[in-house]
Amino acid sequence: MTSPHRFSSEIRVRLSETDALGIVFHANFFTWMDVSRIDYLRNIGQLGELHPTRLFTSVMVHASCDFETPARFDDALVMYTNIVEIGRTSFSFECEIVHKRENRVVARGRSTLVAVDNATWKPIPVPEAFRVAVRAFEGPDLKERKP
Amino acid sequence: MTSPHRFSSEIRVRLSETDALGIVFHANFFTWMDVSRIDYLRNIGQLGELHPTRLFTSVMVHASCDFETPARFDDALVMYTNIVEIGRTSFSFECEIVHKRENRVVARGRSTLVAVDNATWKPIPVPEAFRVAVRAFEGPDLKERKP
Amino acid sequence: MTSPHRFSSEIRVRLSETDALGIVFHANFFTWMDVSRIDYLRNIGQLGELHPTRLFTSVMVHASCDFETPARFDDALVMYTNIVEIGRTSFSFECEIVHKRENRVVARGRSTLVAVDNATWKPIPVPEAFRVAVRAFEGPDLKERKP
Amino acid sequence: MTSPHRFSSEIRVRLSETDALGIVFHANFFTWMDVSRIDYLRNIGQLGELHPTRLFTSVMVHASCDFETPARFDDALVMYTNIVEIGRTSFSFECEIVHKRENRVVARGRSTLVAVDNATWKPIPVPEAFRVAVRAFEGPDLKERKP
Repeated sequence: MTSPHRFSSEIRVRLSETDALGIVFHANFFTWMDVSRIDYLRNIGQLGELHPTRLFTSVMVHASCDFETPARFDDALVMYTNIVEIGRTSFSFECEIVHKRENRVVARGRSTLVAVDNATWKPIPVPEAFRVAVRAFEGPDLKERKP
Repeated sequence: MTSPHRFSSEIRVRLSETDALGIVFHANFFTWMDVSRIDYLRNIGQLGELHPTRLFTSVMVHASCDFETPARFDDALVMYTNIVEIGRTSFSFECEIVHKRENRVVARGRSTLVAVDNATWKPIPVPEAFRVAVRAFEGPDLKERKP
Repeated sequence: MTSPHRFSSEIRVRLSETDALGIVFHANFFTWMDVSRIDYLRNIGQLGELHPTRLFTSVMVHASCDFETPARFDDALVMYTNIVEIGRTSFSFECEIVHKRENRVVARGRSTLVAVDNATWKPIPVPEAFRVAVRAFEGPDLKERKP
Repeated sequence: MTSPHRFSSEIRVRLSETDALGIVFHANFFTWMDVSRIDYLRNIGQLGELHPTRLFTSVMVHASCDFETPARFDDALVMYTNIVEIGRTSFSFECEIVHKRENRVVARGRSTLVAVDNATWKPIPVPEAFRVAVRAFEGPDLKERKP
Protein backbone atom coordinates (compact mmCIF):
# COMPACT_ATOMS: atom_id res chain seq x y z
CA MET A 1 0.00 0.00 0.00
CA THR A 2 1.45 3.33 -0.99
CA SER A 3 -1.34 5.15 0.84
CA PRO A 4 -1.87 5.40 4.55
CA HIS A 5 -5.21 3.93 5.57
CA ARG A 6 -7.56 6.76 4.94
CA PHE A 7 -10.76 5.13 3.83
CA SER A 8 -12.26 2.08 5.39
CA SER A 9 -15.48 0.15 5.25
CA GLU A 10 -16.53 -2.91 7.14
CA ILE A 11 -18.31 -6.15 6.42
CA ARG A 12 -19.23 -9.19 8.47
CA VAL A 13 -18.71 -12.63 6.93
CA ARG A 14 -22.02 -14.21 5.94
CA LEU A 15 -22.60 -17.94 6.28
CA SER A 16 -23.20 -18.06 2.52
CA GLU A 17 -19.67 -16.75 1.98
CA THR A 18 -17.98 -19.62 3.79
CA ASP A 19 -17.39 -23.03 2.26
CA ALA A 20 -17.16 -26.63 3.38
CA LEU A 21 -13.51 -26.16 4.37
CA GLY A 22 -14.85 -23.89 7.13
CA ILE A 23 -13.33 -20.68 5.80
CA VAL A 24 -14.37 -17.91 3.40
CA PHE A 25 -14.49 -19.04 -0.23
CA HIS A 26 -11.83 -16.89 -1.87
CA ALA A 27 -13.97 -15.40 -4.67
CA ASN A 28 -15.97 -13.51 -2.05
CA PHE A 29 -12.96 -11.29 -1.35
CA PHE A 30 -13.34 -9.90 -4.86
CA THR A 31 -17.01 -9.17 -4.20
CA TRP A 32 -16.14 -7.43 -0.93
CA MET A 33 -13.46 -5.36 -2.63
CA ASP A 34 -16.15 -4.25 -5.06
CA VAL A 35 -18.29 -3.22 -2.09
CA SER A 36 -15.35 -1.23 -0.70
CA ARG A 37 -14.76 0.48 -4.08
CA ILE A 38 -18.41 1.52 -4.21
CA ASP A 39 -18.19 2.86 -0.64
CA TYR A 40 -15.03 4.76 -1.57
CA LEU A 41 -16.61 6.31 -4.66
CA ARG A 42 -19.76 7.25 -2.73
CA ASN A 43 -17.55 8.88 -0.10
CA ILE A 44 -15.79 11.13 -2.61
CA GLY A 45 -19.04 11.94 -4.41
CA GLN A 46 -18.21 9.93 -7.50
CA LEU A 47 -20.64 7.04 -7.31
CA GLY A 48 -22.21 7.47 -10.69
CA GLU A 49 -22.05 3.78 -11.51
CA LEU A 50 -25.32 2.72 -13.15
CA HIS A 51 -26.90 6.14 -12.67
CA PRO A 52 -28.04 8.25 -15.61
CA THR A 53 -25.91 11.16 -14.41
CA ARG A 54 -22.67 9.25 -14.34
CA LEU A 55 -19.66 10.61 -16.17
CA PHE A 56 -18.61 7.22 -17.44
CA THR A 57 -18.95 3.50 -16.92
CA SER A 58 -16.03 1.69 -15.35
CA VAL A 59 -15.17 -1.82 -16.45
CA MET A 60 -12.91 -4.17 -14.50
CA VAL A 61 -9.89 -5.27 -16.53
CA HIS A 62 -7.69 -6.77 -13.84
CA ALA A 63 -8.14 -8.04 -10.31
CA SER A 64 -5.70 -9.87 -8.08
CA CYS A 65 -5.60 -10.85 -4.45
CA ASP A 66 -3.11 -12.38 -2.03
CA PHE A 67 -4.81 -14.37 0.69
CA GLU A 68 -2.71 -14.08 3.83
CA THR A 69 -4.73 -15.61 6.63
CA PRO A 70 -8.20 -17.19 6.77
CA ALA A 71 -11.47 -15.47 7.63
CA ARG A 72 -14.42 -17.35 9.06
CA PHE A 73 -18.16 -17.09 9.60
CA ASP A 74 -19.28 -13.98 11.49
CA ASP A 75 -15.81 -12.39 11.50
CA ALA A 76 -15.86 -8.60 11.20
CA LEU A 77 -13.42 -7.44 8.53
CA VAL A 78 -12.22 -3.91 7.87
CA MET A 79 -11.33 -3.02 4.30
CA TYR A 80 -8.85 -0.17 3.75
CA THR A 81 -9.30 1.05 0.21
CA ASN A 82 -7.53 3.67 -1.87
CA ILE A 83 -7.12 4.68 -5.45
CA VAL A 84 -3.36 4.49 -5.85
CA GLU A 85 -2.95 5.28 -9.53
CA ILE A 86 -4.78 7.02 -12.35
CA GLY A 87 -3.58 6.29 -15.86
CA ARG A 88 -4.82 7.77 -19.10
CA THR A 89 -8.00 5.71 -19.36
CA SER A 90 -7.69 3.51 -16.28
CA PHE A 91 -7.42 3.75 -12.50
CA SER A 92 -6.31 1.28 -9.86
CA PHE A 93 -7.48 0.49 -6.36
CA GLU A 94 -5.55 -1.21 -3.61
CA CYS A 95 -7.35 -2.82 -0.71
CA GLU A 96 -6.11 -4.31 2.52
CA ILE A 97 -8.54 -6.48 4.46
CA VAL A 98 -7.88 -6.75 8.18
CA HIS A 99 -9.48 -9.03 10.78
CA LYS A 100 -11.07 -6.50 13.11
CA ARG A 101 -10.78 -8.30 16.45
CA GLU A 102 -7.50 -10.13 15.83
CA ASN A 103 -5.87 -7.22 13.99
CA ARG A 104 -4.18 -9.37 11.34
CA VAL A 105 -4.06 -8.91 7.58
CA VAL A 106 -6.45 -11.32 5.89
CA ALA A 107 -5.95 -10.31 2.26
CA ARG A 108 -4.45 -7.69 -0.01
CA GLY A 109 -5.92 -6.96 -3.40
CA ARG A 110 -5.47 -4.74 -6.39
CA SER A 111 -7.88 -3.98 -9.20
CA THR A 112 -7.75 -1.90 -12.36
CA LEU A 113 -10.78 -0.45 -14.08
CA VAL A 114 -11.04 1.26 -17.42
CA ALA A 115 -13.26 4.28 -18.03
CA VAL A 116 -15.52 3.63 -21.00
CA ASP A 117 -18.15 5.70 -22.73
CA ASN A 118 -21.61 5.03 -21.28
CA ALA A 119 -23.05 4.16 -24.67
CA THR A 120 -20.29 2.67 -26.78
CA TRP A 121 -18.22 1.06 -24.00
CA LYS A 122 -15.09 2.31 -25.80
CA PRO A 123 -12.26 3.49 -23.49
CA ILE A 124 -12.20 7.22 -22.83
CA PRO A 125 -9.76 9.41 -20.87
CA VAL A 126 -10.54 9.43 -17.15
CA PRO A 127 -12.60 12.65 -16.81
CA GLU A 128 -11.01 15.61 -15.06
CA ALA A 129 -13.86 15.93 -12.52
CA PHE A 130 -13.13 12.39 -11.33
CA ARG A 131 -9.38 13.10 -11.17
CA VAL A 132 -9.98 16.21 -9.10
CA ALA A 133 -12.08 14.34 -6.57
CA VAL A 134 -9.55 11.52 -6.22
CA ARG A 135 -6.60 13.94 -5.96
CA ALA A 136 -8.36 15.87 -3.23
CA PHE A 137 -8.87 12.68 -1.24
CA GLU A 138 -5.60 10.86 -1.87
CA GLY A 139 -3.21 13.77 -1.79
CA PRO A 140 0.39 13.48 -2.99
CA ASP A 141 0.55 9.67 -2.75
CA LEU A 142 -1.57 9.35 -5.87
CA LYS A 143 0.39 8.39 -8.97
CA GLU A 144 -1.12 10.02 -11.99
CA ARG A 145 -0.58 10.00 -15.71
CA LYS A 146 -2.41 12.82 -17.47
CA PRO A 147 -4.80 12.10 -20.34
CA MET B 1 -45.51 -32.92 -8.52
CA THR B 2 -48.54 -33.22 -10.73
CA SER B 3 -46.32 -33.90 -13.74
CA PRO B 4 -44.32 -37.00 -14.45
CA HIS B 5 -40.63 -36.21 -14.74
CA ARG B 6 -40.32 -35.11 -18.29
CA PHE B 7 -37.66 -32.48 -18.26
CA SER B 8 -34.42 -32.70 -16.35
CA SER B 9 -31.17 -30.83 -16.13
CA GLU B 10 -28.14 -31.53 -14.01
CA ILE B 11 -25.71 -29.57 -11.93
CA ARG B 12 -22.73 -30.47 -9.79
CA VAL B 13 -22.34 -28.76 -6.41
CA ARG B 14 -19.55 -26.17 -6.48
CA LEU B 15 -17.33 -25.58 -3.47
CA SER B 16 -18.55 -21.98 -3.44
CA GLU B 17 -22.11 -23.26 -2.94
CA THR B 18 -21.33 -25.10 0.29
CA ASP B 19 -21.02 -23.41 3.66
CA ALA B 20 -19.10 -23.90 6.89
CA LEU B 21 -21.69 -26.42 8.11
CA GLY B 22 -20.36 -28.68 5.34
CA ILE B 23 -23.54 -28.70 3.26
CA VAL B 24 -25.05 -26.61 0.47
CA PHE B 25 -26.12 -23.15 1.61
CA HIS B 26 -29.88 -23.20 1.04
CA ALA B 27 -30.17 -20.07 -1.12
CA ASN B 28 -28.22 -21.84 -3.86
CA PHE B 29 -31.20 -24.14 -4.47
CA PHE B 30 -33.11 -21.09 -5.69
CA THR B 31 -30.29 -20.22 -8.07
CA TRP B 32 -30.21 -23.79 -9.39
CA MET B 33 -33.97 -23.81 -9.88
CA ASP B 34 -33.50 -20.68 -11.97
CA VAL B 35 -30.92 -22.56 -14.04
CA SER B 36 -33.42 -25.38 -14.51
CA ARG B 37 -36.18 -22.95 -15.56
CA ILE B 38 -33.86 -21.42 -18.17
CA ASP B 39 -32.97 -24.92 -19.44
CA TYR B 40 -36.67 -25.79 -19.61
CA LEU B 41 -37.55 -22.63 -21.55
CA ARG B 42 -34.63 -23.14 -23.94
CA ASN B 43 -35.83 -26.72 -24.51
CA ILE B 44 -39.33 -25.63 -25.55
CA GLY B 45 -37.99 -22.77 -27.67
CA GLN B 46 -39.21 -20.05 -25.32
CA LEU B 47 -35.99 -18.68 -23.92
CA GLY B 48 -36.53 -15.10 -24.87
CA GLU B 49 -35.43 -13.79 -21.48
CA LEU B 50 -33.19 -10.75 -21.96
CA HIS B 51 -33.27 -11.09 -25.75
CA PRO B 52 -34.66 -8.36 -27.99
CA THR B 53 -36.99 -10.87 -29.63
CA ARG B 54 -38.63 -11.96 -26.43
CA LEU B 55 -42.40 -11.88 -26.15
CA PHE B 56 -42.32 -10.62 -22.58
CA THR B 57 -40.18 -10.30 -19.48
CA SER B 58 -40.94 -12.63 -16.61
CA VAL B 59 -40.57 -11.43 -13.04
CA MET B 60 -40.40 -13.73 -10.04
CA VAL B 61 -43.21 -13.06 -7.55
CA HIS B 62 -43.01 -16.15 -5.35
CA ALA B 63 -40.48 -18.86 -4.62
CA SER B 64 -40.54 -21.57 -2.01
CA CYS B 65 -38.53 -24.66 -1.30
CA ASP B 66 -38.65 -27.61 1.07
CA PHE B 67 -35.22 -28.93 1.92
CA GLU B 68 -35.54 -32.68 2.44
CA THR B 69 -31.99 -34.03 2.71
CA PRO B 70 -28.57 -32.39 2.49
CA ALA B 71 -26.39 -32.03 -0.58
CA ARG B 72 -22.62 -31.70 -0.37
CA PHE B 73 -19.60 -30.59 -2.36
CA ASP B 74 -19.20 -32.31 -5.73
CA ASP B 75 -22.58 -34.10 -5.53
CA ALA B 76 -24.32 -34.44 -8.88
CA LEU B 77 -27.95 -33.34 -8.64
CA VAL B 78 -30.73 -33.88 -11.17
CA MET B 79 -33.44 -31.24 -11.35
CA TYR B 80 -36.85 -32.32 -12.69
CA THR B 81 -38.67 -29.22 -13.78
CA ASN B 82 -42.13 -28.57 -15.15
CA ILE B 83 -44.54 -25.75 -15.66
CA VAL B 84 -47.56 -27.00 -13.73
CA GLU B 85 -49.93 -24.06 -14.05
CA ILE B 86 -50.58 -21.06 -16.27
CA GLY B 87 -52.81 -18.34 -14.88
CA ARG B 88 -53.98 -15.20 -16.58
CA THR B 89 -50.74 -13.24 -16.22
CA SER B 90 -48.59 -15.73 -14.30
CA PHE B 91 -47.18 -19.23 -14.58
CA SER B 92 -45.74 -21.63 -12.03
CA PHE B 93 -42.88 -24.08 -12.08
CA GLU B 94 -42.35 -27.07 -9.84
CA CYS B 95 -38.92 -28.57 -9.41
CA GLU B 96 -37.73 -31.72 -7.70
CA ILE B 97 -34.02 -32.00 -7.02
CA VAL B 98 -32.71 -35.54 -6.68
CA HIS B 99 -29.28 -36.77 -5.55
CA LYS B 100 -28.07 -38.58 -8.64
CA ARG B 101 -25.99 -41.36 -7.11
CA GLU B 102 -28.00 -41.91 -3.93
CA ASN B 103 -31.38 -41.48 -5.65
CA ARG B 104 -32.97 -39.51 -2.83
CA VAL B 105 -34.99 -36.30 -2.96
CA VAL B 106 -32.88 -33.36 -1.84
CA ALA B 107 -35.38 -30.53 -2.29
CA ARG B 108 -38.73 -29.63 -3.80
CA GLY B 109 -39.48 -26.11 -4.93
CA ARG B 110 -42.17 -24.03 -6.52
CA SER B 111 -41.93 -20.64 -8.16
CA THR B 112 -44.40 -18.26 -9.76
CA LEU B 113 -43.48 -15.68 -12.35
CA VAL B 114 -45.57 -12.89 -13.80
CA ALA B 115 -45.44 -11.91 -17.47
CA VAL B 116 -44.77 -8.18 -17.77
CA ASP B 117 -44.45 -5.88 -20.73
CA ASN B 118 -40.80 -5.54 -21.83
CA ALA B 119 -40.87 -1.76 -21.55
CA THR B 120 -43.34 -0.85 -18.81
CA TRP B 121 -42.95 -3.92 -16.59
CA LYS B 122 -46.75 -3.90 -16.14
CA PRO B 123 -48.38 -7.37 -15.99
CA ILE B 124 -49.75 -8.63 -19.30
CA PRO B 125 -51.69 -11.78 -20.21
CA VAL B 126 -49.39 -14.76 -20.79
CA PRO B 127 -49.03 -14.70 -24.62
CA GLU B 128 -50.74 -17.45 -26.60
CA ALA B 129 -47.49 -18.51 -28.34
CA PHE B 130 -45.98 -19.27 -24.94
CA ARG B 131 -49.11 -21.17 -23.83
CA VAL B 132 -49.05 -23.27 -26.99
CA ALA B 133 -45.43 -24.28 -26.44
CA VAL B 134 -46.00 -25.20 -22.80
CA ARG B 135 -49.21 -27.11 -23.57
CA ALA B 136 -47.42 -29.11 -26.25
CA PHE B 137 -44.73 -30.10 -23.78
CA GLU B 138 -46.76 -30.64 -20.63
CA GLY B 139 -49.86 -32.24 -22.10
CA PRO B 140 -53.07 -32.68 -20.10
CA ASP B 141 -51.42 -32.31 -16.69
CA LEU B 142 -51.08 -28.58 -17.21
CA LYS B 143 -53.61 -26.52 -15.27
CA GLU B 144 -54.56 -23.47 -17.25
CA ARG B 145 -56.67 -20.39 -16.77
CA LYS B 146 -57.31 -18.54 -20.00
CA PRO B 147 -56.43 -14.84 -20.33
CA MET C 1 -46.52 -10.58 10.30
CA THR C 2 -48.00 -11.43 13.65
CA SER C 3 -45.26 -9.47 15.42
CA PRO C 4 -44.80 -5.73 15.48
CA HIS C 5 -41.46 -4.74 14.00
CA ARG C 6 -39.14 -5.14 16.90
CA PHE C 7 -35.89 -6.29 15.40
CA SER C 8 -34.35 -4.87 12.30
CA SER C 9 -31.09 -5.06 10.43
CA GLU C 10 -30.02 -3.32 7.29
CA ILE C 11 -28.17 -4.19 4.14
CA ARG C 12 -27.22 -2.29 1.01
CA VAL C 13 -27.65 -4.01 -2.36
CA ARG C 14 -24.29 -5.02 -3.82
CA LEU C 15 -23.64 -4.87 -7.56
CA SER C 16 -22.97 -8.62 -7.45
CA GLU C 17 -26.52 -9.16 -6.17
CA THR C 18 -28.18 -7.54 -9.17
CA ASP C 19 -28.68 -9.28 -12.50
CA ALA C 20 -28.84 -8.36 -16.17
CA LEU C 21 -32.53 -7.43 -15.82
CA GLY C 22 -31.29 -4.52 -13.69
CA ILE C 23 -32.85 -5.70 -10.43
CA VAL C 24 -31.83 -7.92 -7.52
CA PHE C 25 -31.60 -11.59 -8.45
CA HIS C 26 -34.26 -13.17 -6.26
CA ALA C 27 -32.12 -15.84 -4.57
CA ASN C 28 -30.20 -13.08 -2.79
CA PHE C 29 -33.27 -12.32 -0.68
CA PHE C 30 -32.84 -15.75 0.91
CA THR C 31 -29.19 -14.97 1.69
CA TRP C 32 -30.16 -11.63 3.23
CA MET C 33 -32.86 -13.26 5.34
CA ASP C 34 -30.14 -15.58 6.62
CA VAL C 35 -28.08 -12.51 7.54
CA SER C 36 -31.09 -11.08 9.38
CA ARG C 37 -31.65 -14.36 11.28
CA ILE C 38 -28.01 -14.38 12.38
CA ASP C 39 -28.34 -10.74 13.52
CA TYR C 40 -31.51 -11.62 15.41
CA LEU C 41 -29.91 -14.59 17.16
CA ARG C 42 -26.81 -12.55 18.05
CA ASN C 43 -29.10 -9.87 19.48
CA ILE C 44 -30.87 -12.31 21.84
CA GLY C 45 -27.58 -14.00 22.81
CA GLN C 46 -28.34 -17.22 20.96
CA LEU C 47 -25.85 -17.13 18.11
CA GLY C 48 -24.22 -20.45 18.77
CA GLU C 49 -24.31 -21.48 15.13
CA LEU C 50 -20.98 -23.10 14.19
CA HIS C 51 -19.49 -22.44 17.62
CA PRO C 52 -18.32 -25.24 19.90
CA THR C 53 -20.50 -23.94 22.72
CA ARG C 54 -23.71 -24.00 20.74
CA LEU C 55 -26.72 -25.80 22.16
CA PHE C 56 -27.69 -27.27 18.82
CA THR C 57 -27.28 -26.94 15.08
CA SER C 58 -30.20 -25.54 13.13
CA VAL C 59 -30.96 -26.83 9.66
CA MET C 60 -33.21 -25.06 7.17
CA VAL C 61 -36.17 -27.20 6.14
CA HIS C 62 -38.39 -24.63 4.45
CA ALA C 63 -37.98 -21.17 2.98
CA SER C 64 -40.43 -19.09 1.00
CA CYS C 65 -40.58 -15.54 -0.18
CA ASP C 66 -43.07 -13.24 -1.89
CA PHE C 67 -41.40 -10.62 -4.01
CA GLU C 68 -43.57 -7.51 -3.91
CA THR C 69 -41.55 -4.74 -5.58
CA PRO C 70 -38.07 -4.62 -7.09
CA ALA C 71 -34.85 -3.61 -5.36
CA ARG C 72 -31.89 -2.22 -7.27
CA PHE C 73 -28.16 -1.60 -6.97
CA ASP C 74 -27.14 0.47 -3.94
CA ASP C 75 -30.64 0.51 -2.42
CA ALA C 76 -30.66 0.40 1.37
CA LEU C 77 -33.07 -2.24 2.64
CA VAL C 78 -34.34 -2.73 6.18
CA MET C 79 -35.17 -6.27 7.25
CA TYR C 80 -37.68 -6.71 10.06
CA THR C 81 -37.20 -10.16 11.49
CA ASN C 82 -38.97 -12.13 14.18
CA ILE C 83 -39.33 -15.66 15.39
CA VAL C 84 -43.09 -16.14 15.15
CA GLU C 85 -43.46 -19.77 16.13
CA ILE C 86 -41.60 -22.46 18.06
CA GLY C 87 -42.72 -26.04 17.50
CA ARG C 88 -41.46 -29.17 19.18
CA THR C 89 -38.22 -29.47 17.21
CA SER C 90 -38.55 -26.51 14.85
CA PHE C 91 -38.90 -22.74 14.85
CA SER C 92 -40.01 -20.26 12.22
CA PHE C 93 -38.88 -16.78 11.27
CA GLU C 94 -40.83 -14.16 9.39
CA CYS C 95 -39.05 -11.33 7.66
CA GLU C 96 -40.32 -8.21 5.96
CA ILE C 97 -37.88 -6.36 3.74
CA VAL C 98 -38.61 -2.67 3.25
CA HIS C 99 -37.02 -0.15 0.87
CA LYS C 100 -35.53 2.34 3.29
CA ARG C 101 -35.86 5.56 1.30
CA GLU C 102 -39.08 4.79 -0.56
CA ASN C 103 -40.73 3.08 2.43
CA ARG C 104 -42.32 0.28 0.40
CA VAL C 105 -42.37 -3.45 1.05
CA VAL C 106 -39.90 -5.22 -1.22
CA ALA C 107 -40.37 -8.81 -0.02
CA ARG C 108 -41.88 -10.95 2.71
CA GLY C 109 -40.36 -14.26 3.64
CA ARG C 110 -40.78 -17.15 6.01
CA SER C 111 -38.34 -19.85 6.99
CA THR C 112 -38.46 -22.89 9.22
CA LEU C 113 -35.42 -24.47 10.82
CA VAL C 114 -35.14 -27.72 12.72
CA ALA C 115 -32.97 -28.12 15.81
CA VAL C 116 -30.64 -31.08 15.35
CA ASP C 117 -28.02 -32.64 17.58
CA ASN C 118 -24.58 -31.16 16.90
CA ALA C 119 -23.03 -34.56 16.24
CA THR C 120 -25.74 -36.82 14.82
CA TRP C 121 -27.82 -34.15 13.01
CA LYS C 122 -30.96 -35.96 14.30
CA PRO C 123 -33.84 -33.63 15.29
CA ILE C 124 -34.01 -32.77 18.98
CA PRO C 125 -36.52 -30.75 21.01
CA VAL C 126 -35.83 -27.01 20.85
CA PRO C 127 -33.83 -26.45 24.08
CA GLU C 128 -35.51 -24.57 26.92
CA ALA C 129 -32.72 -21.96 27.14
CA PHE C 130 -33.39 -20.99 23.54
CA ARG C 131 -37.15 -20.84 24.14
CA VAL C 132 -36.66 -18.62 27.17
CA ALA C 133 -34.57 -16.13 25.19
CA VAL C 134 -37.05 -15.99 22.31
CA ARG C 135 -40.05 -15.67 24.64
CA ALA C 136 -38.37 -12.79 26.46
CA PHE C 137 -37.84 -10.98 23.18
CA GLU C 138 -41.06 -11.76 21.33
CA GLY C 139 -43.53 -11.60 24.20
CA PRO C 140 -47.09 -12.88 23.90
CA ASP C 141 -47.18 -12.85 20.08
CA LEU C 142 -44.98 -15.93 19.97
CA LYS C 143 -46.87 -19.12 19.12
CA GLU C 144 -45.35 -22.01 20.96
CA ARG C 145 -45.80 -25.74 21.12
CA LYS C 146 -44.03 -27.30 24.09
CA PRO C 147 -41.56 -30.13 23.58
CA MET D 1 -0.21 -20.15 -21.26
CA THR D 2 2.88 -22.31 -21.39
CA SER D 3 0.75 -25.38 -21.97
CA PRO D 4 -1.20 -26.25 -25.06
CA HIS D 5 -4.89 -26.55 -24.31
CA ARG D 6 -5.15 -30.04 -23.00
CA PHE D 7 -7.88 -29.90 -20.42
CA SER D 8 -11.11 -28.05 -20.79
CA SER D 9 -14.42 -27.79 -19.02
CA GLU D 10 -17.46 -25.78 -19.88
CA ILE D 11 -19.98 -23.63 -18.08
CA ARG D 12 -22.97 -21.60 -19.16
CA VAL D 13 -23.44 -18.14 -17.65
CA ARG D 14 -26.29 -18.14 -15.11
CA LEU D 15 -28.58 -15.13 -14.75
CA SER D 16 -27.43 -14.88 -11.12
CA GLU D 17 -23.86 -14.38 -12.36
CA THR D 18 -24.66 -11.28 -14.39
CA ASP D 19 -25.06 -7.83 -12.90
CA ALA D 20 -27.02 -4.66 -13.59
CA LEU D 21 -24.41 -3.54 -16.14
CA GLY D 22 -25.65 -6.46 -18.26
CA ILE D 23 -22.43 -8.47 -18.11
CA VAL D 24 -20.90 -11.11 -15.84
CA PHE D 25 -19.93 -9.75 -12.43
CA HIS D 26 -16.17 -10.26 -12.37
CA ALA D 27 -15.89 -12.22 -9.12
CA ASN D 28 -17.74 -15.10 -10.77
CA PHE D 29 -14.72 -15.78 -12.97
CA PHE D 30 -12.83 -16.79 -9.84
CA THR D 31 -15.63 -19.18 -8.89
CA TRP D 32 -15.61 -20.69 -12.38
CA MET D 33 -11.85 -21.11 -12.31
CA ASP D 34 -12.36 -23.03 -9.06
CA VAL D 35 -14.85 -25.25 -10.88
CA SER D 36 -12.28 -25.82 -13.63
CA ARG D 37 -9.56 -26.70 -11.09
CA ILE D 38 -11.85 -29.26 -9.47
CA ASP D 39 -12.65 -30.73 -12.89
CA TYR D 40 -8.94 -30.89 -13.68
CA LEU D 41 -8.08 -32.62 -10.40
CA ARG D 42 -10.95 -35.09 -10.84
CA ASN D 43 -9.68 -35.84 -14.34
CA ILE D 44 -6.18 -36.75 -13.13
CA GLY D 45 -7.53 -38.73 -10.17
CA GLN D 46 -6.42 -36.23 -7.58
CA LEU D 47 -9.69 -34.80 -6.36
CA GLY D 48 -9.18 -35.54 -2.71
CA GLU D 49 -10.34 -32.09 -1.62
CA LEU D 50 -12.65 -32.45 1.39
CA HIS D 51 -12.53 -36.24 1.27
CA PRO D 52 -11.15 -38.29 4.15
CA THR D 53 -8.72 -40.05 1.81
CA ARG D 54 -7.10 -36.88 0.52
CA LEU D 55 -3.35 -36.52 0.67
CA PHE D 56 -3.51 -32.90 1.72
CA THR D 57 -5.71 -29.82 1.84
CA SER D 58 -4.97 -27.08 -0.63
CA VAL D 59 -5.44 -23.46 0.34
CA MET D 60 -5.62 -20.58 -2.12
CA VAL D 61 -2.88 -18.00 -1.53
CA HIS D 62 -3.05 -15.98 -4.74
CA ALA D 63 -5.54 -15.44 -7.53
CA SER D 64 -5.47 -12.99 -10.38
CA CYS D 65 -7.45 -12.49 -13.54
CA ASP D 66 -7.30 -10.28 -16.61
CA PHE D 67 -10.72 -9.60 -18.05
CA GLU D 68 -10.35 -9.27 -21.81
CA THR D 69 -13.86 -9.15 -23.24
CA PRO D 70 -17.31 -9.34 -21.66
CA ALA D 71 -19.44 -12.44 -21.16
CA ARG D 72 -23.22 -12.28 -20.92
CA PHE D 73 -26.23 -14.26 -19.75
CA ASP D 74 -26.52 -17.73 -21.29
CA ASP D 75 -23.12 -17.56 -23.02
CA ALA D 76 -21.31 -20.89 -23.15
CA LEU D 77 -17.71 -20.52 -22.00
CA VAL D 78 -14.89 -23.02 -22.34
CA MET D 79 -12.21 -23.01 -19.66
CA TYR D 80 -8.77 -24.34 -20.59
CA THR D 81 -6.99 -25.22 -17.39
CA ASN D 82 -3.52 -26.49 -16.61
CA ILE D 83 -1.15 -26.80 -13.72
CA VAL D 84 1.86 -24.88 -15.02
CA GLU D 85 4.17 -24.98 -12.04
CA ILE D 86 4.80 -27.02 -8.91
CA GLY D 87 6.96 -25.44 -6.22
CA ARG D 88 8.11 -26.95 -2.96
CA THR D 89 4.84 -26.53 -1.10
CA SER D 90 2.70 -24.79 -3.72
CA PHE D 91 1.35 -25.30 -7.23
CA SER D 92 -0.09 -22.91 -9.79
CA PHE D 93 -2.90 -23.15 -12.29
CA GLU D 94 -3.42 -21.08 -15.40
CA CYS D 95 -6.82 -20.81 -16.99
CA GLU D 96 -7.98 -19.29 -20.25
CA ILE D 97 -11.69 -18.70 -20.64
CA VAL D 98 -12.96 -18.59 -24.21
CA HIS D 99 -16.38 -17.60 -25.56
CA LYS D 100 -17.50 -20.81 -27.21
CA ARG D 101 -19.56 -19.47 -30.11
CA GLU D 102 -17.59 -16.30 -30.81
CA ASN D 103 -14.18 -17.93 -30.23
CA ARG D 104 -12.69 -14.96 -28.38
CA VAL D 105 -10.73 -14.88 -25.15
CA VAL D 106 -12.91 -13.63 -22.30
CA ALA D 107 -10.45 -13.88 -19.41
CA ARG D 108 -7.10 -15.27 -18.36
CA GLY D 109 -6.39 -16.18 -14.77
CA ARG D 110 -3.70 -17.61 -12.56
CA SER D 111 -3.99 -19.07 -9.08
CA THR D 112 -1.53 -20.48 -6.59
CA LEU D 113 -2.46 -22.94 -3.87
CA VAL D 114 -0.38 -24.21 -0.97
CA ALA D 115 -0.48 -27.79 0.22
CA VAL D 116 -1.21 -27.91 3.92
CA ASP D 117 -1.52 -30.74 6.40
CA ASN D 118 -5.14 -31.89 6.72
CA ALA D 119 -5.17 -31.39 10.47
CA THR D 120 -2.77 -28.58 11.31
CA TRP D 121 -3.12 -26.53 8.09
CA LYS D 122 0.66 -26.01 8.16
CA PRO D 123 2.35 -26.02 4.71
CA ILE D 124 3.81 -29.37 3.68
CA PRO D 125 5.82 -30.42 0.61
CA VAL D 126 3.60 -31.21 -2.36
CA PRO D 127 3.29 -35.03 -2.11
CA GLU D 128 5.09 -37.13 -4.71
CA ALA D 129 1.90 -39.00 -5.74
CA PHE D 130 0.34 -35.67 -6.71
CA ARG D 131 3.48 -34.61 -8.60
CA VAL D 132 3.51 -37.88 -10.53
CA ALA D 133 -0.10 -37.46 -11.63
CA VAL D 134 0.43 -33.86 -12.74
CA ARG D 135 3.68 -34.68 -14.55
CA ALA D 136 1.98 -37.51 -16.44
CA PHE D 137 -0.74 -35.14 -17.61
CA GLU D 138 1.24 -31.97 -18.29
CA GLY D 139 4.39 -33.49 -19.74
CA PRO D 140 7.59 -31.48 -20.24
CA ASP D 141 5.89 -28.06 -20.09
CA LEU D 142 5.48 -28.37 -16.34
CA LYS D 143 7.92 -26.26 -14.35
CA GLU D 144 8.85 -28.05 -11.19
CA ARG D 145 10.91 -27.37 -8.11
CA LYS D 146 11.58 -30.49 -6.08
CA PRO D 147 10.67 -30.63 -2.39
